[in-house]
Amino acid sequence: MLSLLDLCARIDSGRLTPEGAVGLVREAIAAREPEIGALVCVDPAPAIPTTGPLAGIAVGIKDIIDTADLPTAMGSPIYAGWRPRADAPVVARLKSLGAVPLAKTTTTPFAFLDPTATRNPHHPGHTPGGSSAGSAAAVAAGMLPLALGTQTGGSIIRPAAFCGVVGVKPSFRLLPTVGVKCYSWALDTLGLFAASVPDAAHALALLADRPAIAAHADAGALRIGIVRQDFCAAPDPEAEAALARAARAAERAGARVRDYALPARFGEAFAAHAAIQDYEVRQSLAWEYATHRDALPPRLRAALDAAQGIETAAYDAARRTAHHARRGLKEVFSEDGLDAILTYAAPGAAPAGLDQTGDSRFNRLWTLMGVPCVTLPVDRTSAGLPVGVQVITRFGDDGRALAAAGLIERALRD
Amino acid sequence: MLSLLDLCARIDSGRLTPEGAVGLVREAIAAREPEIGALVCVDPAPAIPTTGPLAGIAVGIKDIIDTADLPTAMGSPIYAGWRPRADAPVVARLKSLGAVPLAKTTTTPFAFLDPTATRNPHHPGHTPGGSSAGSAAAVAAGMLPLALGTQTGGSIIRPAAFCGVVGVKPSFRLLPTVGVKCYSWALDTLGLFAASVPDAAHALALLADRPAIAAHADAGALRIGIVRQDFCAAPDPEAEAALARAARAAERAGARVRDYALPARFGEAFAAHAAIQDYEVRQSLAWEYATHRDALPPRLRAALDAAQGIETAAYDAARRTAHHARRGLKEVFSEDGLDAILTYAAPGAAPAGLDQTGDSRFNRLWTLMGVPCVTLPVDRTSAGLPVGVQVITRFGDDGRALAAAGLIERALRD
Repeated sequence: MLSLLDLCARIDSGRLTPEGAVGLVREAIAAREPEIGALVCVDPAPAIPTTGPLAGIAVGIKDIIDTADLPTAMGSPIYAGWRPRADAPVVARLKSLGAVPLAKTTTTPFAFLDPTATRNPHHPGHTPGGSSAGSAAAVAAGMLPLALGTQTGGSIIRPAAFCGVVGVKPSFRLLPTVGVKCYSWALDTLGLFAASVPDAAHALALLADRPAIAAHADAGALRIGIVRQDFCAAPDPEAEAALARAARAAERAGARVRDYALPARFGEAFAAHAAIQDYEVRQSLAWEYATHRDALPPRLRAALDAAQGIETAAYDAARRTAHHARRGLKEVFSEDGLDAILTYAAPGAAPAGLDQTGDSRFNRLWTLMGVPCVTLPVDRTSAGLPVGVQVITRFGDDGRALAAAGLIERALRD
Repeated sequence: MLSLLDLCARIDSGRLTPEGAVGLVREAIAAREPEIGALVCVDPAPAIPTTGPLAGIAVGIKDIIDTADLPTAMGSPIYAGWRPRADAPVVARLKSLGAVPLAKTTTTPFAFLDPTATRNPHHPGHTPGGSSAGSAAAVAAGMLPLALGTQTGGSIIRPAAFCGVVGVKPSFRLLPTVGVKCYSWALDTLGLFAASVPDAAHALALLADRPAIAAHADAGALRIGIVRQDFCAAPDPEAEAALARAARAAERAGARVRDYALPARFGEAFAAHAAIQDYEVRQSLAWEYATHRDALPPRLRAALDAAQGIETAAYDAARRTAHHARRGLKEVFSEDGLDAILTYAAPGAAPAGLDQTGDSRFNRLWTLMGVPCVTLPVDRTSAGLPVGVQVITRFGDDGRALAAAGLIERALRD
């Protein structure tokens, strides 16, 4: 994979020019893209700033994020060739940092569950996950050092884990979702993919203009709770093994690790995710549903059909459940003495077949809670498919989530 | 003015067809628009549904709200002729209710403070207020029975008060801001203008799919606190007189009215509004600022110039201040025994001149708090300009805010 920090260091020292760095990326794309299919389009002649902390860093932009210089098709023929007027703020921010939004990456249509044609770089017969399929796959294939994605259920953490890259779903609204096609305004969260935890932390700190995110200093040993999310079906043995391996690595690195059973209310909050997501997408995609229903892919169309029947009162009740669970989660961290939660990133390795994107059940609660989530690769299956774990901290504590993930990443390497 | 409920009743009873209702609106537009200038464009041949609770109701759409069938120019030459792909969800919702999004209404550029050319229907030399200038003026001039606006500081309540119509800024995110050009994602709130409180309540209940908003039954006498917002400069005598008059009307209608001094922390929250708004618009309009700075109007350009210097830490501190004040405001209502707050809608009547849009200082705290605000006309100055008051309730209590405003509206008429 292409390390963002490594590229930055080579550019800073003059061993590589920003243009040269973009050239390396173009070579990688030429070599891997035909087999992976992670990109929707590539800018043939982008502006390449020569200054800025991310000068020369080519970035993949999930194709539901508005770009003024490249089409934004939402993974759907309804938006084929669509050209937004403006860059989304996160794209403008990347440019202001010197980065080059070089390519749009594949997304499932409107970031729901209907799959893309993108292949998992570790096995062409397996899904890369979704909805941020192209961003995860492009970083995993070494085509891009950084890519943006979004998560409403499990659309960053799941594909990152399936592709063996680091994925970060930051605190809700740490990065603005302005200019990002909305699915659910209470859930949609903008995040990123990179080759390592320090790469991801560096990018997020710059994007969010909060240097502390990449320079988190922890006082004393981290107190980590192993959470098994037993309000939903158990994972595959490979996910359980990865969790145990990550826990041992954290202990070796000095963390105090213990099992932690989430109070029952979090099971209720987990169940509330669906009502919120479905009620909001009924509104967010109301125009598409009313005018282009036949052009919607089958899973999304069925979800929208079903969503028409949700009562507003059920949505309001789900919002209240989520609100109380968010407060409860603060208590879990403060009163129960946890700095971080370590849990499954996905039910296992990427499933076989390109007809689905895998299961987001271990991600949905955390998206609803708005808390930072970081996944990092831990293991490989016998077929060579990566298996990750997920580190979670309290709302706003993105730096600590990355610090904890970095600690585990280093310990796994030792 | 055109009453929405009156039109609906005439259509329901068969005395008027939906097409006939739209025809009445077209006649009114032909008569008043040349002198007012409230509309950006009018759909020459819109679909006119024959069924639905708002069949035949023509609606004005503030020109920062996406419409698939009409251009959306954001009040700026940067977006001249711009055609979004999709309707904003609120526009799709209007259509699904049978309403006809007939016209786009003038907005100050990007909904900031640079004025439009729209005139106050009560005096052509006075501003209609802003930023939702055209929506307020079109309803006031009897051109439309309903219009949509947005408020980030005081962009619904202020123009409604200046134009002598009812304006509603609902609870934050009661109506989705998806497809609405973002200024500040923590503040932007979608709302509406109508000729009377029952008209506004009927429309909001339908738009939000919450019938209780228009059918609020209050147990016992309303406890109303008169709040003078003395953390900012005192209003003109006409605003003070309107507040006193509205308070007396509420008492006549059976409410228990008393003066209430907001705790000091709300002054701090009032001050926090600017940092949040300015920090967020720096991101929201980053593309426009980076690529079209010279095409931005002077007040917005100056605001964006200044906003470049805001520290992220100052923004984070302002967000914390606002968060604590929101919790504090819940206590004001529950522990201090208030059902509603009655306060100034604006510092006075619409100022003379079309070179400014008036002052939002009595609106900004409440936008930041996310609570429902309703303004209704109370008085007229000797020059014939309306003066309003503002009713505020706790978050989510939109029905009670409209019920309290309706009670005052009726008592003023008696």
